Amino acid sequence: MKILVLNSGSSSLKYQLFEMPNDKPLCSGLVDRIGLEGSTITHKIFRGQTEDKLKLDETVKDHEEGLLKVTQLLTDSEKGVIKNTNEVEAIGHRVVHGGEQFASTTLINNEVKTKIKELFAIAPLHNPPNLLGITVAERVFPKAKQVAVFDTAFHQTMPALSYRFAIPKEMYTEMGIRAYGFHGTSHQYVSKKAIQYLGNPKAKIITIHLGNGSSMTAIDSGKSVDTSMGLGPMGGLVMGTRAGDVDPSIIFHLINERGYDPKEVNDILNKKSGLLGLCGFSDMRDVKQAILEGNQDAKLAYDLYAYRIQKYIGNFSAVLKGLDAIVFTAGIGENDIQMREAVCCDMGFFGMELDKNKNSLPGNHLREINTYGSKVKILVIPTNEELEIGQQTYSLLKD
Amino acid sequence: MKILVLNSGSSSLKYQLFEMPNDKPLCSGLVDRIGLEGSTITHKIFRGQTEDKLKLDETVKDHEEGLLKVTQLLTDSEKGVIKNTNEVEAIGHRVVHGGEQFASTTLINNEVKTKIKELFAIAPLHNPPNLLGITVAERVFPKAKQVAVFDTAFHQTMPALSYRFAIPKEMYTEMGIRAYGFHGTSHQYVSKKAIQYLGNPKAKIITIHLGNGSSMTAIDSGKSVDTSMGLGPMGGLVMGTRAGDVDPSIIFHLINERGYDPKEVNDILNKKSGLLGLCGFSDMRDVKQAILEGNQDAKLAYDLYAYRIQKYIGNFSAVLKGLDAIVFTAGIGENDIQMREAVCCDMGFFGMELDKNKNSLPGNHLREINTYGSKVKILVIPTNEELEIGQQTYSLLKD
Repeated sequence: MKILVLNSGSSSLKYQLFEMPNDKPLCSGLVDRIGLEGSTITHKIFRGQTEDKLKLDETVKDHEEGLLKVTQLLTDSEKGVIKNTNEVEAIGHRVVHGGEQFASTTLINNEVKTKIKELFAIAPLHNPPNLLGITVAERVFPKAKQVAVFDTAFHQTMPALSYRFAIPKEMYTEMGIRAYGFHGTSHQYVSKKAIQYLGNPKAKIITIHLGNGSSMTAIDSGKSVDTSMGLGPMGGLVMGTRAGDVDPSIIFHLINERGYDPKEVNDILNKKSGLLGLCGFSDMRDVKQAILEGNQDAKLAYDLYAYRIQKYIGNFSAVLKGLDAIVFTAGIGENDIQMREAVCCDMGFFGMELDKNKNSLPGNHLREINTYGSKVKILVIPTNEELEIGQQTYSLLKD
Repeated sequence: MKILVLNSGSSSLKYQLFEMPNDKPLCSGLVDRIGLEGSTITHKIFRGQTEDKLKLDETVKDHEEGLLKVTQLLTDSEKGVIKNTNEVEAIGHRVVHGGEQFASTTLINNEVKTKIKELFAIAPLHNPPNLLGITVAERVFPKAKQVAVFDTAFHQTMPALSYRFAIPKEMYTEMGIRAYGFHGTSHQYVSKKAIQYLGNPKAKIITIHLGNGSSMTAIDSGKSVDTSMGLGPMGGLVMGTRAGDVDPSIIFHLINERGYDPKEVNDILNKKSGLLGLCGFSDMRDVKQAILEGNQDAKLAYDLYAYRIQKYIGNFSAVLKGLDAIVFTAGIGENDIQMREAVCCDMGFFGMELDKNKNSLPGNHLREINTYGSKVKILVIPTNEELEIGQQTYSLLKD
């Protein structure tokens, strides 16, 4: 079964085509700057061990035109991987916010679309382009089944103690204000791999997803029991441009005492904070280069990034009442040797002992980087959200 | 040396007179509802083991009149404890916010008053009445030395990693936006007692102050290295009416998507959240009564209160990279047996093992309530902020 995985952003379309059930990626790509000047399409074709890459500078006025151009690439007589669009039996859509309505992957119908729309209020930036991707895909692939895979679904197993805030009850019961958590597809994917590797279905695991956005999840017996993001994807860890946790007093101080507009403060905490706010660089590689050049702000930003992760390891160890393994994943988690070392440094109280040699070996496979005697396993597991979406879509439809 | 300790709020004056250096309280009291209808003065006189209590319904139009009425009580020919106001050699003022300017107890002069005033922007509710108390005391006790003891001073030893937020650097360098922490006098007082009791000046201690406001502090070798409150006294633990930590997204959601006014949201998170928001009762005794009557919201509120403390024990264990003792203090910490049990429940991973019998014994003295084999000591230590202020004032002046 050929399954197209689609991640539709406000001005982008990310896609990957899989052959299921053998998890084989056929091609992947990105339509970028949709509706803007200088839009591009990057398209990769996988054939055995080789990879073909195309980059096209094309005007793409909207998402529908973008997806139509993708179908041309997929079915191209020379470079195409399928003969016609009917070969695509299903499309797995990444949908950021599923609220409390969606605790698992769901076949899309009108009712589902209505519910995704109802969640615009609590996911104003993400759900609208996700829904647009769905409606466009329905027109371009009219014969395919459309499936929604929610970023929040994995976290729906959290107990009330983790998802409730100490705010007026009606804000939860009437407005749905609670913690939902994000990156669920990634946390689920790597925690399944970790449980398999540990051979312990009851393992207490903390997964640490460090990418453009970053979050951590406490996982008990395969279920998410707490996570660092809340109602929206701003809180928790320090990120490239997002502040993560801040004292709420700061927001009111800026608005009430310093005359900032609430929208401006929101914008600052989302786009001008995190590593960027602390040192002027949002990309971790730039931060590290700056440290080498003696930049003290960059050093503070890097250390604060690691410190916040350590604090959440402590926090989630209290939630789990124990700890068997931590898992580093996503761009920074998989590749930043120094960051993993900074996070694991002096964490013997939590039973963690890093093997610096194992940690420094490169690789793009699951690996254990703790010492032989470490009570807690320290794992690096490459994430693959697209594959997880493809697998969940296949799993829903196969019967 | 007789030292009057003064805590001046927006419509109240709390006071206690000590004979130093022998820490002897002579009398204490509260002028309440200053400038409002139904103002009262409660005055207690301590003589050996007996206590005399007066309650007067008197019109008190402002703080100066309030303090003058207190001096009448102090020097009353029958019930007074001093002959005339000149016997009061010093007044120790509780000042909530000392910013980065004040890392220790300070003799008040014009420059100090100017700095306290400069901090109005980051402590708009607390520093103005504190400064008012100082200026009134200068007029009423013109011969006494005036000393400021800051709630934030003890936390000035925190490292940048603990006090900086991942927000634009200029917000720290130009506006002073950082974590300051509060209840410093209490955390300092009980941690000194704990260190004395443990006989280990390098002990890693978490102090848990649970009163009307609540906060926790990580203390390494007698120094505050992290604390749960930040710029203002709203964040961290769940409190009677304050929310403690919330995802910042919630604030923007309420303002930008639900049309709330920022001041209203601030008010809700300060005065209508916490236990009150979750279950309708802000007083822990009422919450517990409601639980007995089967109220599920009250149960959630109580459990969430304990859960948040457990999470901070984890968080601060990561900060301290170890743990030797935790200390419960203030009203709820000293008296709520069930809350202490809920906090210590299943915390064996952190080396904590509560002795339920010891925990259930009443007392108003320092006591150890862990089992014999517990790696981490669990202590209950009554706090005494007034005495700490008196002692610090004496200590500054005695040479």
